[in-house]
Amino acid sequence: MGVVEELERIFHPRGVAIVGASNKLGNLGNFYLQGFLQQGFDRDKLYVVHPIEKEVSGVKAYPRVRDIPGDVDLAIVFSPREAVPAIVMDCTYKGITGVAICTSGFGEHSSEGQGLQQELVNIARSSVTRLIGPNCLGIYCPASRLVNYAGVMPVESGPVGMISQSGSLTVQFPLAASGMGIHFSKVVSCGNECDLNAADFLEYFDQDAETQIIVAYIEGVKDGRRFFNLARDISKRKPIIVWKGGTSVVGSRSVASHTGALAGAPQIWDAVFKQTGIINVDSEDMMLDCLQAFYFLPLPRGNRVAIISGAGGTGVTIADACIEYGLAVAELSEATKVKLKKIVPPVGTSIDNPLDLGMMSAFDLNLIAKTVETLAMDEHVDMIVKTVGTNTADYIRKEVEAMIGIGKPVAYITGCAMRVVMEEPKPVKGVAIYPNGRRAAQVLSKMVQYQQYRLAE
Amino acid sequence: MGVVEELERIFHPRGVAIVGASNKLGNLGNFYLQGFLQQGFDRDKLYVVHPIEKEVSGVKAYPRVRDIPGDVDLAIVFSPREAVPAIVMDCTYKGITGVAICTSGFGEHSSEGQGLQQELVNIARSSVTRLIGPNCLGIYCPASRLVNYAGVMPVESGPVGMISQSGSLTVQFPLAASGMGIHFSKVVSCGNECDLNAADFLEYFDQDAETQIIVAYIEGVKDGRRFFNLARDISKRKPIIVWKGGTSVVGSRSVASHTGALAGAPQIWDAVFKQTGIINVDSEDMMLDCLQAFYFLPLPRGNRVAIISGAGGTGVTIADACIEYGLAVAELSEATKVKLKKIVPPVGTSIDNPLDLGMMSAFDLNLIAKTVETLAMDEHVDMIVKTVGTNTADYIRKEVEAMIGIGKPVAYITGCAMRVVMEEPKPVKGVAIYPNGRRAAQVLSKMVQYQQYRLAE
Repeated sequence: MGVVEELERIFHPRGVAIVGASNKLGNLGNFYLQGFLQQGFDRDKLYVVHPIEKEVSGVKAYPRVRDIPGDVDLAIVFSPREAVPAIVMDCTYKGITGVAICTSGFGEHSSEGQGLQQELVNIARSSVTRLIGPNCLGIYCPASRLVNYAGVMPVESGPVGMISQSGSLTVQFPLAASGMGIHFSKVVSCGNECDLNAADFLEYFDQDAETQIIVAYIEGVKDGRRFFNLARDISKRKPIIVWKGGTSVVGSRSVASHTGALAGAPQIWDAVFKQTGIINVDSEDMMLDCLQAFYFLPLPRGNRVAIISGAGGTGVTIADACIEYGLAVAELSEATKVKLKKIVPPVGTSIDNPLDLGMMSAFDLNLIAKTVETLAMDEHVDMIVKTVGTNTADYIRKEVEAMIGIGKPVAYITGCAMRVVMEEPKPVKGVAIYPNGRRAAQVLSKMVQYQQYRLAE
Repeated sequence: MGVVEELERIFHPRGVAIVGASNKLGNLGNFYLQGFLQQGFDRDKLYVVHPIEKEVSGVKAYPRVRDIPGDVDLAIVFSPREAVPAIVMDCTYKGITGVAICTSGFGEHSSEGQGLQQELVNIARSSVTRLIGPNCLGIYCPASRLVNYAGVMPVESGPVGMISQSGSLTVQFPLAASGMGIHFSKVVSCGNECDLNAADFLEYFDQDAETQIIVAYIEGVKDGRRFFNLARDISKRKPIIVWKGGTSVVGSRSVASHTGALAGAPQIWDAVFKQTGIINVDSEDMMLDCLQAFYFLPLPRGNRVAIISGAGGTGVTIADACIEYGLAVAELSEATKVKLKKIVPPVGTSIDNPLDLGMMSAFDLNLIAKTVETLAMDEHVDMIVKTVGTNTADYIRKEVEAMIGIGKPVAYITGCAMRVVMEEPKPVKGVAIYPNGRRAAQVLSKMVQYQQYRLAE
């Protein structure tokens, strides 16, 4: 069985064992167990393994994995570090495909921990069992009801696959994305990657029909050449958004104590990003900004932006940001200008790009719709950035809807005050939402670069 | 009367005339009038001027400014462009100190508009009357109940003065800041600056006891030398946060049609920022990030940051960002490490900087308080960055409170998911709140630079 088939089984397990869950207050295994139950995982296919407990949160407990009567394809381990080698041995005996080891204190901790970690690898090597972690946060797969944090993870599935060498991000990021209506196929916390690593998950996501966009937080890769080759190929079909952590000297020192991985020099990574078409980001917010664009927007045909504002200052700063990120401020065609002159009021406005529709445009939905339509038809315009006008939440929702379906990417800028006065509008197909022009420009330029990579030879 | 006294009178007018308000649907003057009434401006000191109306929204209207019986120190003009010269003439006749001209279609519009604008200047020159605008959004001064946008502006006053060559930002930005409990002394929209300009307002804010922090959106300055000298001097006492718009070629072309100002080459501005101690920012979000820091945090004594996280990955990325922005990741003293070893659990944690308190730290308020206290006492630590743990809103509020009063700046990182699952915590004295480590690092480095400027002979 290849790694893709193995992961397919791990993500869709016939049964799950939570090893080390107990009735003790604050027990992490119990916390996960409750998460599975809340998420609607079939309790008949859920098993607890614990040396003493008979039942945990209403789920029957067995002293050893091999004592479980049903089929188990995934074990999630929370037991104390010293107990883990015997547990992995037990899992190999039971023939379990995947063991996610959440317990920490291994390679990231000390040379003693490193020795223990090697022991796990040696045990699994001669078996059908593959290891995730140790020092990880497990798997989130909403379709299979697998969950990595109790009580908060969305039940909805979507087309985003996530690989993360930060455990907390595998909780935080899907949660944040769900607030924009973006959902996930599978999310995996890699931990120390003693066996399965980022390249394995990347290969799986390529083959996985449920995954159309891949996001990753990477500190270092175990098998750089394989990761590089996979990314270069997969990028042609599915965008891969990567946040590379540990780029500074201190950061990379911390990586060693975090996951025990080698971080790699920043220059190497810059070259990797360029040659593989990976969309690189440098914060969780930028990762979400990019994901939003690839999730909701069509790819732009070129780098020329038309900017629509209802205030001169905003248009100016958006033009600044577009130029800074390598986009072009579109030269509108003469035909477009003639059309716009018929639509746009003559005073307090500017028929140029940036297009200043004046303050009253915040109250005229028809003006917005006609302007956007006119710009969308201009062959010199590849993308549109439109700023919000100060108005009601209902009006703003209608304004966003008026920009759907023009066939070119639209970024709608809500401004810094939006959150204070009302609920921000949600992105919809064709229209992404950003708090300022700078963030929109950065993302649109990433889309242009990705499109260039995709279309090259 | 010098400009400071003139502006003092304009910001605290004995009476206000709204010129051009009418009962016509969508009339902008009426919109402002209603804003004044909602804000609690004394209706006996509020006058409408209109050629035909007898009463607008319950406020008596006069045909000309000179017909108003009471004292008027501020007139706000919304009349059609062609009527404005006669109105300004009328205001000089009445002896009004300030006329804010919201009407557009002047220097920013055409050579014809430029001519009309010059006419306004000529009329005012030989009088006691000073002009704000044209093409501006007026004044917001909560203590005096002056308001620039009806229905949304906070009534609370605070220590922030704002100068903006973008009108929309004079509404958006105070609104956004109010969401964090940050309030304003006076906010002025400069418009085309045919008379009073950014340097005048800067000089006023220096003298104004109600203003302790100055923020500005600037596209270009009319009197560069004076602005430069003022800023260099005032920065020693009050931080000046400036967002310079129109930095790109296209941006500066738009500036011409926006306010008719000369933008100035980016290199010149870089030098200005360096030599004046101005804190320069490049987006409204960064302006708010910086304002938050200067509003709530003490100035740091040096650039050494201690990072506390409950997850390795987050610590790594914050360290990366600190280094990138020129901060140092503090080398903790041996005494601190010994103390921390007694406090912090041994497994799944890392006693170094970044300090990884492990996942369970999200549930242990006492651990957080002790750790922060220990780091604050370390002479090698100038600032603390602490990441949120996944927990309840109530717990997080308590965690923020546990970090008050340590005497060193604390930045609390809420992470991208916070907004989706609960209300974000508000900043308090000593603790600023940022969505990610990158934004915190950027702001803290600005504080360090500012402190260096302040302390340099």
